[in-house]
Amino acid sequence: MTSAAKTSDEMTSREACVARDLVDPLGTFRDRFVIPEGVIYLDGNSLGPMPRAAAGMLNHTIEQEWGQDLIRSWNSARWFDMPLQLGDRVGALIGAAPGQTLVCDTTSINLYKAIHAAIGLRPDRDVVVAEDESFPTDLYVIEGAMKSADRPMKRQLIGTDGPSIEALINRNVAVAVLSHVNYRTGELLDMAAITQQLHDAGALVVWDLCHSIGVVEIDFDRHGVDFAVGCTYKYLNGGPGSPAFISVAKKHQAAARHPLSGWWGHAAPFAFDRDFRPAVGIKRFLCGTQPIISMRGVQAALDAMEGVEVAALRQKSLALTDLFMVRLSALIPGLDLVTPREASLRGSQVGISFDKGFAVVQAMIERGVIGDFRAPDLMRFGFAPLYVRFEDVWDAAEILAECIKAEVWRDPRYNRKLEVT
Amino acid sequence: MTSAAKTSDEMTSREACVARDLVDPLGTFRDRFVIPEGVIYLDGNSLGPMPRAAAGMLNHTIEQEWGQDLIRSWNSARWFDMPLQLGDRVGALIGAAPGQTLVCDTTSINLYKAIHAAIGLRPDRDVVVAEDESFPTDLYVIEGAMKSADRPMKRQLIGTDGPSIEALINRNVAVAVLSHVNYRTGELLDMAAITQQLHDAGALVVWDLCHSIGVVEIDFDRHGVDFAVGCTYKYLNGGPGSPAFISVAKKHQAAARHPLSGWWGHAAPFAFDRDFRPAVGIKRFLCGTQPIISMRGVQAALDAMEGVEVAALRQKSLALTDLFMVRLSALIPGLDLVTPREASLRGSQVGISFDKGFAVVQAMIERGVIGDFRAPDLMRFGFAPLYVRFEDVWDAAEILAECIKAEVWRDPRYNRKLEVT
Repeated sequence: MTSAAKTSDEMTSREACVARDLVDPLGTFRDRFVIPEGVIYLDGNSLGPMPRAAAGMLNHTIEQEWGQDLIRSWNSARWFDMPLQLGDRVGALIGAAPGQTLVCDTTSINLYKAIHAAIGLRPDRDVVVAEDESFPTDLYVIEGAMKSADRPMKRQLIGTDGPSIEALINRNVAVAVLSHVNYRTGELLDMAAITQQLHDAGALVVWDLCHSIGVVEIDFDRHGVDFAVGCTYKYLNGGPGSPAFISVAKKHQAAARHPLSGWWGHAAPFAFDRDFRPAVGIKRFLCGTQPIISMRGVQAALDAMEGVEVAALRQKSLALTDLFMVRLSALIPGLDLVTPREASLRGSQVGISFDKGFAVVQAMIERGVIGDFRAPDLMRFGFAPLYVRFEDVWDAAEILAECIKAEVWRDPRYNRKLEVT
Repeated sequence: MTSAAKTSDEMTSREACVARDLVDPLGTFRDRFVIPEGVIYLDGNSLGPMPRAAAGMLNHTIEQEWGQDLIRSWNSARWFDMPLQLGDRVGALIGAAPGQTLVCDTTSINLYKAIHAAIGLRPDRDVVVAEDESFPTDLYVIEGAMKSADRPMKRQLIGTDGPSIEALINRNVAVAVLSHVNYRTGELLDMAAITQQLHDAGALVVWDLCHSIGVVEIDFDRHGVDFAVGCTYKYLNGGPGSPAFISVAKKHQAAARHPLSGWWGHAAPFAFDRDFRPAVGIKRFLCGTQPIISMRGVQAALDAMEGVEVAALRQKSLALTDLFMVRLSALIPGLDLVTPREASLRGSQVGISFDKGFAVVQAMIERGVIGDFRAPDLMRFGFAPLYVRFEDVWDAAEILAECIKAEVWRDPRYNRKLEVT
């Protein structure tokens, strides 16, 4: 990414960053979000901020649709249609044509459906490949999906110090479950190449897009991706625990089965048949009644992104992370950045391995810079191009450097326990 | 129920109903809910109305906890604890001691967990008993849970015209999945006796409490119930699609397993282990991140019930349904009430089989009385003792009778399609 590299070359002063923000084509989108006064929010990879219009939209759903219109809103406010309607809009962000994506349930539950379906689509194979460094719920859900499969299955792990994905791909592999962007290091996998490798071996893939949707260009259809899942509360800003999404390629829908066969996935949910008959198309991946108010948060979030091209988000994201890494390297030589410097290899976050990282993150939060910490020693900072400014990046790097130079870990108040998702 | 029978004897005029409302010990609770002007709401068995305090509580969660406090709210606003904290409060309504109930996910998904766990706890048995008249998602989820079990399982159905539960209980039965109150007829099963019958045969039970929680006294612990599930958006008034609940008896928790093994159910969710190790206790029935805003609706709903005894709710509920049935029988002799007249055999709703029921329900809605219709011919009216008045019951019966006498089904505008959950 020459443009990203150039960016940090240009921005050699805070003033240059402020100037750049003024001409940033995404600059006006920041006003669509509530960023608390005095806060530099670098934790949008964990929980995105509130779109300014969300409060009004949610309040309307609460006071009018629920409070006044009551049961009629299932039809009049189209509550029934939300999983599909929001799904198509999420699909557009990952290059999936309509009719392949639902917003519903949680990432873990959607992973379960996808993995179970994939195992069922490859009945003569007994291996599920995953990464030892994936977000743990992916590994746990693989265990659950394997246990509930119709035959014994094995999980094989790509390791940081273990086998590569190439070493594990063979004709025993039913499906690989892979994180597009690693939640710790921010490393970005090559979706096109890996999907192709898996398909060449007759295997399927489930991509976990939690840390890439909204900041990385994704071509679900063009790369022939089989399944994808992800959450909507990180870079999509759907609100705390807002329902997740699942995408299933059209080519697999007719044959795909999963055991969470609730009535919303039935071909005729109001016929009240005794036997389950899966709906045609993506709707068979629905299960039960969705939390409508939290669903509206996803709608408000998608509205706040209207008019943005993912390509523009990606370009700014790379410029932000590039600037942060360049500044940190200048301010604290030798700092252990675990995120790849090569643009094509990283998502939208920067991870720093630092043994006093817990205290540094606490001290930074006190100074208004919100990032997070993952045991044992990882500081994580997410750069959401919709609302993070270059000036914020400059300041955050300065504050991080100050905290390290001041050895804030000597102050016991920075060692309080804190958990974040 | 002599007291309920007496009630309808007393209330032989609208004035007597109004007078009775004035001395109703639950009368003041109505003010805790938003009931739209001019509406008699008899659909709380489908979607309960909004507690008056809900809008403020949800708005605080949206604007302050999400908008201002952001990621810190996972700890400061105790978002992490909500499934358990709300679960204990829901547990109190069904006689389940703390540590046995969670609010999370959907009823369908919680059913899946419970049925899967029950099948696992009875490894030498191959039958799941259910009711042909249960809400269909229960039957569908049984299919899914059976398919994902570690051995072939069979579903056997108690039939309206088929075998009785007594005929099906034997030592092949792993678990029976039963609706405490039938969603169509309003019939109430004898939880104590049936649970005992099942236990005598060494079988387990999953009670679906969707249509009984909040209006019927339930003694989860005293009757030694194994599993229970239900939704929170009917008589609990948690809001559209608010997360459901699951209760698992303490005695089963250590051995219970289900395959939705997401990180929230891990013994140490933030240790980020590679292998799943179920949490101790009820927490192992959690899976993924919950929709926090919709969860707050459950909290507001439970707050609105503070200070109510379930016994008082049950007593008023029976008086309301008794009055409705007595009035209907007087106004329209020969009307086919499918709900048992015997108090001990009914929940809190009245079902009427009427071939022009669809049009009648539409016409009643236009006249301000909201009930619902289930194909092919069932009119359903739910009587929520927290906010339905005796005067409402009187008026609703009058309006229903008027609609039938006026033969409203001759008017084509009352035959528009309407779907409700």
